[in-house]
Amino acid sequence: MNLNALYKLAYGMYIIGAHKDGKLNGQVANTVFQVTSEPPTVAVSINKGNLTHEYIKASRAFSAAVLCTATPLPYIGAFGFKSGRDVDKTKGVNFKIGQTGSPVFLDHATAYLEVEVGQEIDAGTHTVFIGRVVAAEVLTEDPCMTYEYYHQVKRGTTPKTAPSYIAKEKGGEK
Amino acid sequence: MNLNALYKLAYGMYIIGAHKDGKLNGQVANTVFQVTSEPPTVAVSINKGNLTHEYIKASRAFSAAVLCTATPLPYIGAFGFKSGRDVDKTKGVNFKIGQTGSPVFLDHATAYLEVEVGQEIDAGTHTVFIGRVVAAEVLTEDPCMTYEYYHQVKRGTTPKTAPSYIAKEKGGEK
Repeated sequence: MNLNALYKLAYGMYIIGAHKDGKLNGQVANTVFQVTSEPPTVAVSINKGNLTHEYIKASRAFSAAVLCTATPLPYIGAFGFKSGRDVDKTKGVNFKIGQTGSPVFLDHATAYLEVEVGQEIDAGTHTVFIGRVVAAEVLTEDPCMTYEYYHQVKRGTTPKTAPSYIAKEKGGEK
Repeated sequence: MNLNALYKLAYGMYIIGAHKDGKLNGQVANTVFQVTSEPPTVAVSINKGNLTHEYIKASRAFSAAVLCTATPLPYIGAFGFKSGRDVDKTKGVNFKIGQTGSPVFLDHATAYLEVEVGQEIDAGTHTVFIGRVVAAEVLTEDPCMTYEYYHQVKRGTTPKTAPSYIAKEKGGEK
């Protein structure tokens, strides 16, 4: 078995926004995908240890901003490699409060969605949140960043808490 | 709300293989994604009306072959716009029987996975099958086809039964 095959799966790069008791947070995710078209339904896989997980569970909603290829690595790093428990991720970035109350992070975003969570699937280390799209806008026609582009062109890395992390000894993150 | 935002989500292009009572079938899917890394766990969203859905439910397993950008449209069309109830999709294509008993379709594949289904999530028109990766191989280093490439470069279309179908009146499939 060669788990590098998992690197062949294609994803985008998203900033997931969520809120709880007036507090706001965001994190990078790559596993956002549509599960049905009628009604428009989207899922995301979030690590149970993440603050965003706690906020989505509490508010039963999240936003997903689709990042463009030009997104600077430090922007991704600020959302992806730091915890909202230690830093306020809304500082110095542009966002609006969406109709679900979730922060929608607007920098480098080509589009965004807001989702009201209908189902939570326990997938071990992660929860898959599934819900209906209640807001959606296209912001620019800039090309969207793929996970492959992030790794190969931007030379980005993956935190251990990501669904798509593959340990070095198993062939990943060389 | 502009549902074209859903087109900004990035996916790959996959041939899903499944079996039941010695019968084999395959279909195109774009919503294959990893949900956890330890253990390696993958999900796919399949329309309830599809024969592959019936086979995955019966065998509780599926394969996913990752298509390369060079995949000819007729190959995708044969798996994506025809039902295994009407035609034998294994005719004239290369495949092997994987360790789950699922057919693994090898033409134009850069990698494949086999998954033993652990959970089935009812998502209305579709079921999200989630399970552990039990086999995985990289076959080539050819670039993988993204759903965007399929639409923009290959000028491919989406059947109404796909999770990512957007009706014309809602801005999709122009």
